[in-house]
Formats: sequence, C-alpha cells, structure tokens
Amino acid sequence: MAQISQRIRHITGGGSDGWDLYNRARELAAQGVPVVELTIGEHDIKTDPVILDAMREAAGRGQTGYAAIPGISALRAAVAERTERMTGVRTGPQNVIVTPGGQSALFAAHQLVGDPGDRALYVEPYYATYPGTIRGAGLVPVCVTARAEAGFEPTEVDLMAAAPGAKSLLVNSPNNPTGVIYGEETLRGIQRVAEEHDLWLVSDEVYDSQVWEGRHLSPRALSGMEARTLVVGSMSKSHAMTGSRLGWVIAPEEVVEMLWDLSTVTNYGIPGYIQKAGVFALGLGPDYEARIAEPFRRRREITQRLLAGQQVVRAAPQGGAMYTMLDVRGTGLSGDDFAWKLLEEERIAVMPGGSFGQATTGHVRVAMTVEDGAYEAALQRLLAFAARLAMAPA
Amino acid sequence: MAQISQRIRHITGGGSDGWDLYNRARELAAQGVPVVELTIGEHDIKTDPVILDAMREAAGRGQTGYAAIPGISALRAAVAERTERMTGVRTGPQNVIVTPGGQSALFAAHQLVGDPGDRALYVEPYYATYPGTIRGAGLVPVCVTARAEAGFEPTEVDLMAAAPGAKSLLVNSPNNPTGVIYGEETLRGIQRVAEEHDLWLVSDEVYDSQVWEGRHLSPRALSGMEARTLVVGSMSKSHAMTGSRLGWVIAPEEVVEMLWDLSTVTNYGIPGYIQKAGVFALGLGPDYEARIAEPFRRRREITQRLLAGQQVVRAAPQGGAMYTMLDVRGTGLSGDDFAWKLLEEERIAVMPGGSFGQATTGHVRVAMTVEDGAYEAALQRLLAFAARLAMAPA
Repeated sequence: MAQISQRIRHITGGGSDGWDLYNRARELAAQGVPVVELTIGEHDIKTDPVILDAMREAAGRGQTGYAAIPGISALRAAVAERTERMTGVRTGPQNVIVTPGGQSALFAAHQLVGDPGDRALYVEPYYATYPGTIRGAGLVPVCVTARAEAGFEPTEVDLMAAAPGAKSLLVNSPNNPTGVIYGEETLRGIQRVAEEHDLWLVSDEVYDSQVWEGRHLSPRALSGMEARTLVVGSMSKSHAMTGSRLGWVIAPEEVVEMLWDLSTVTNYGIPGYIQKAGVFALGLGPDYEARIAEPFRRRREITQRLLAGQQVVRAAPQGGAMYTMLDVRGTGLSGDDFAWKLLEEERIAVMPGGSFGQATTGHVRVAMTVEDGAYEAALQRLLAFAARLAMAPA
Repeated sequence: MAQISQRIRHITGGGSDGWDLYNRARELAAQGVPVVELTIGEHDIKTDPVILDAMREAAGRGQTGYAAIPGISALRAAVAERTERMTGVRTGPQNVIVTPGGQSALFAAHQLVGDPGDRALYVEPYYATYPGTIRGAGLVPVCVTARAEAGFEPTEVDLMAAAPGAKSLLVNSPNNPTGVIYGEETLRGIQRVAEEHDLWLVSDEVYDSQVWEGRHLSPRALSGMEARTLVVGSMSKSHAMTGSRLGWVIAPEEVVEMLWDLSTVTNYGIPGYIQKAGVFALGLGPDYEARIAEPFRRRREITQRLLAGQQVVRAAPQGGAMYTMLDVRGTGLSGDDFAWKLLEEERIAVMPGGSFGQATTGHVRVAMTVEDGAYEAALQRLLAFAARLAMAPA
C-alpha cells in the first residue's frame, strides 16, 4: 500500500472521544438489554411527515437532477430571512451557502479561514468533532478552556493569551455540551480578541432555537463583526431533521463565493428535493421551531426540579440546548468512571465529560432525548446512584 | 475582513472552465429563446418513481435520523456486491465507504493520497472539476496529456515522465469528456507507473454502466493493484440519480477506516432514506442499469450514422459514456469559437473542448442528453453548420 496522508491519519488525534461507551451501549441494546440512551443529540421524534410530504412532492415533480451548487434560490432566501429575523442583521441570499449539514459547514469554514499549518482556536468544553474538523482541514487546533468555575464561558484574558498567530476562533452558543449561553460581556470579549488579532470568528449557532433563559445573541450582530464572522447553522436541531443533512454558512458575499468554489469540488451541491423540504419547513415559521424545542424546555424543568432535591450532583447553567452537563465530582468518581459504572449498573448511557475536553472530566453530559416520563425516571435513578456513591465509604 | 486562505482562493485556477457558455445558454433559455442544451451530463429522464417510492417509504418508516457515517450496512453490502460482480475482485462492505456523491468521493480520495504541497497527477482531457478538486485538497495538480493522436489514452512514457515525486494518479475510464475506454495495454502501463513510483491510483469509474464497445476493465482488477487503488463510484449516471448525491469509494479496509474519520468531520454521514433508495435501486440489478444506459447507446448509433455521411467533423473513439467529443478543426475554428458561434447562430449549446484541457482545444463535447429525435436534429444542424464553415472562404 502507498502512504496515507498525515492529515487524515491525525484527524482523530488518537482519542476515543467517548465513542467507546456509546458503542458499548449500542452493543447492549443489540443484545436485548434495555438501555436508556441519553448520549447523542437526536430528538426522540422523527422528522415531521408534513416536511417529508414536501420532499416527496418535490421529488415527484422531477426535482431529482443536479441542484444549484450554493443552494436553490428559495432556500438561500428562506435561510437569509430567518437569520435576519432572529439576529437583526441584514442578510440576503448572497450571504448564504447551503451545505450537507452543519458538520460540512464547520469543515468548509475551516478550509477558508486558514492554510495548512495555521493555528485555529476552539473552546472547550467542545462538541466532539471540533478538533478533528480543524485537523481534517490541515490546521493546528489550539484549545482555550472555559472553566466550570467561570460558568463554562471563555474569558477574554484566556482567549487573548492564545490568539497571537492564530487565524480563527470557533465558538458555540447555545453550547453543546454544556447548555450554556454566552452572555453579552463574553461576546464583547470575543469581539475584542478577534479584532485585536484579526481572527475569523466561526460561530456555530445550530442550537439557536433552543433558548430557555435569557437570550441568544449572535456575535455577527455586534457592530463591525459581520465582516469577520462565519455563522454555521443547520435544520437538524431546529426542525428535527438530523438525518437530512441540511446546513449552511452565513458570511460576507465574497466568502460565500469562495465557499461556492469549495462546494463545487467537495459535494457538487445537495439534493434539490431535500432543499425544497427545507424551504417548506422554514416556511412553518418560528412557532414551529418553538414546538420542536418544547420537549427539551419541559425536560430542563424536570431536571432543575430533581436537582433541587439533592446536594451531590450540580448542573452547569442550563440556558439552552438539549443537554444537561452534570458535575459528579461529589460522588468521588471521575466523569468517565461515573458514566461507565452508570451504564453497567443502571443501564443508563450518558457521555463522559472527558469526551468534551479537560474542563469537564468531572462531569457527564445527559442528552434530554427520551420522552418526559422516561427521562424523569432515568434522572431520578442517576441521582440516587450518585447519592449512594457519595455515601459509600471511600 | 480577515484573510481568506490561499487554498480556497486557488480552487478555480482562474479559468472559466466553459461555464461562461453554459451560463449564457441558461440565460437565453430564461429569456424564452429555445436552446438545445447539450452541455452537461444529466439524463433527459428523472429519477425513477419506484426509486423515489423506496425513499419515501424509508423516510415514512422513520429513517430520518443520523445514519451510520460510513454508510448503512445494507448499502455498503450492495455496493460491494455490484463491484465484485462487475470487476471480479473480491469486495466486502468493509471495502466500501458511502459519500455524498462521486465528487465528494474524489475529494476524499485526494485528502488521503497526499499532504498539502504534494503532487497529484491527472490526465487531460479531464472532467471539469479535477484540477480544482486536487487544489481544494491542497495538492499540486500535475497534468499528463492524452493526445487526440493517441486516441485520448495516456501513454506510459508520458505518465512515467511526470510521476517522479508524485503521490497519486487520477484516471477516468470510461472517460468524460471523450467517451474513450482505456484499453488493457494502457491500464498495464498505468500499473507499471503506479508501482514504479509507489503512487495511489484514483480510478473514477462512474460511467462503468455505459459501455458501448469492448469492455471496461477496472484497474483495481489488475494483479497487485487492489492495495493501491481507490475506485470512485456513484449512482448518478448508472441509475439516473444525479441529484441524490450518492457515491462511494472502494478501497482497502484500512483506507476505508481513514475515510470514515474524514467523513465524520466533512459530512457526518448522508441521509438514511437516500441510502435506502440506493439499496433498492441497486437491487434492481444489471438489467436496470442497462435500461438506463440504453438511450445513450441509441444516440451513439445516431451519432456514428450521421458522422459517416460527412468529412468535416470527426469523433473520438466513442467506447462508452454519454458524450461525443467532436474534432471541429476542419472548420477552421477553435472548439471555443465553434461552440460560441453554434450557440449564437444555431441555438445549440455544447461544451468548448478547451474546458477539458489543452488536448481538446480543437474539439467540442456534445452531451447526448436530449431525446433521440431532438438529438438527431441538433446533430444534423451542427454538422451542416460545420460544413458551411468549412466551405466558407477563409
């Protein structure tokens, strides 16, 4: 065999990223062992049949050939309209390029912000694919820690210290895995760092429809930031369309044109019938997005109620998104050990916090992705399990 | 605005790649001017309703969540089975990774074969995205000319001369744009070059179901080549599913595992309902593929009949694929001038040969993608137009 490139060998960085536990849970489930699956960010509902009907109709009308590479006009316009409505920033179709999912948008953004060997900043706790995405694009990932003590928001001082020589900064609010929504002061600090060091800001806002407390502010809306911000969006979480792989980048027109060239060689456009389904789904408006988000709002309330009744486990400030990040250090176990023990003894699968970086090694992430009753029962069992551990002789 | 990466700025290489003419044709059509559109490789039929039904059924059954990143097992198995049947090379699901279209497979392959700055060979005449795909992956494209005089097949001497220091060679047979099918001697020459210089061979075989004369031999089937060959495939041409973006790479298991890591960060899998449609479509078997290919076989016969009746225009050896490469040098015009004049005067849109490299600047590519009667009439007009040009005083 000839030689395999360094960049592709290095994508995983050698870590297991928590997939071992996830795979073990699936293995148990395949053996017929009932496991409560609270690992990944997938809704407990399927994509709405009315959206699938729109897709079928478009395909039936013959929308089965190559579609315009940057996205069909109607979808680019609908995404622009949603962005402008939610952020207040004037946005046109020329600011939108459609991608095969938010992950592809993240990759495309990092192809654009730097050349091989350039440094790209990201913040931990992070979504599992971030460092691999940066490495896959040939860039050098540089991690900035947002500490539990700081409510999992990155500080300007820490960002400023890491920024010299970097080309970009990747942030994610509402945040996966913590559920934290960055406050305005944090965002203004991010702006100062980006301006001081002439960084691109890649802002992953795929949870922008899941806001439980306060308000999501897009950094693109800060004065002067539009020209250096690439917003990553997706219909996965907002419309329960994870499997349809429909995402986008919002950026200055010149950037969109460059990403168009990139899409020509990386995907050559995405299915027109899926794009039509996306247009239809966006046309259902903000009330529909609120309806899709509603179950997570309810489960967050369940979470807060149950946590209030005990002292062992604490939650991160849970402003948005479909996750709860639980600090389990009071049990005397690491997040990793806690998660494995919980799986083996209670048959509840959660992600070890270490999967998301060093800042959360004492934590586990709970995806609130089973129906309310089952969720409440599982969380009760998790808390009782933690309480027993905390009381056990060391 | 911060700085845009060099690699993304260089994807297009500054060329127009023939899209100017394509865009002009679309503009005319939009103005209501009837244009016979023979530019791009898109069937004149839509995706079969039975395939769309399979997709709808899978989506309706709830296949709307994240799908396995390397492809669902059933699809990987079906692709492996088709590959083994068509090439004779033992192939299992572990040798297959599903990608969002053949273009994505080409990009992924080039991410794997080299690191930024490495040289990657490709053969002209080439499919329009090849050099951009190589540049987009950060590699340096090196072109080897397959001359019209050599029947558009690359010679071992030319390949060997370009190979020192390169990491890979990209070939495409049956060929777009020429329709040429590489003979066994050519393939053995390619093998010797790949072995001598330890190159990866990226073999784009998306036209493997469109073979009109002789036989398509996959270079992966040559003894010893399996370990260094990455075959790019797709359902676009074989099943008239261009818009569904369903492709794959066939490779050694270790390579597939690396491409799996890459897919995790570049697309995070592709829609499960589309994959189910792919499984269904492949299940229709070789007769179905022959049926989809049949119109192009007929139009190739029309082409050969009409060409036999004149002396001005000559065709490349048209062994397969859905194109005719016409040598128009007998008219005294370049391919570029001929194509533009043909569009303005006859309202027939074909691709200037220069879009596919220097070897075809005296040619135009005709996509046989309108129904037989319209195709015959258009080709008759094209030939009459060429005859008038040839007889005109210089």
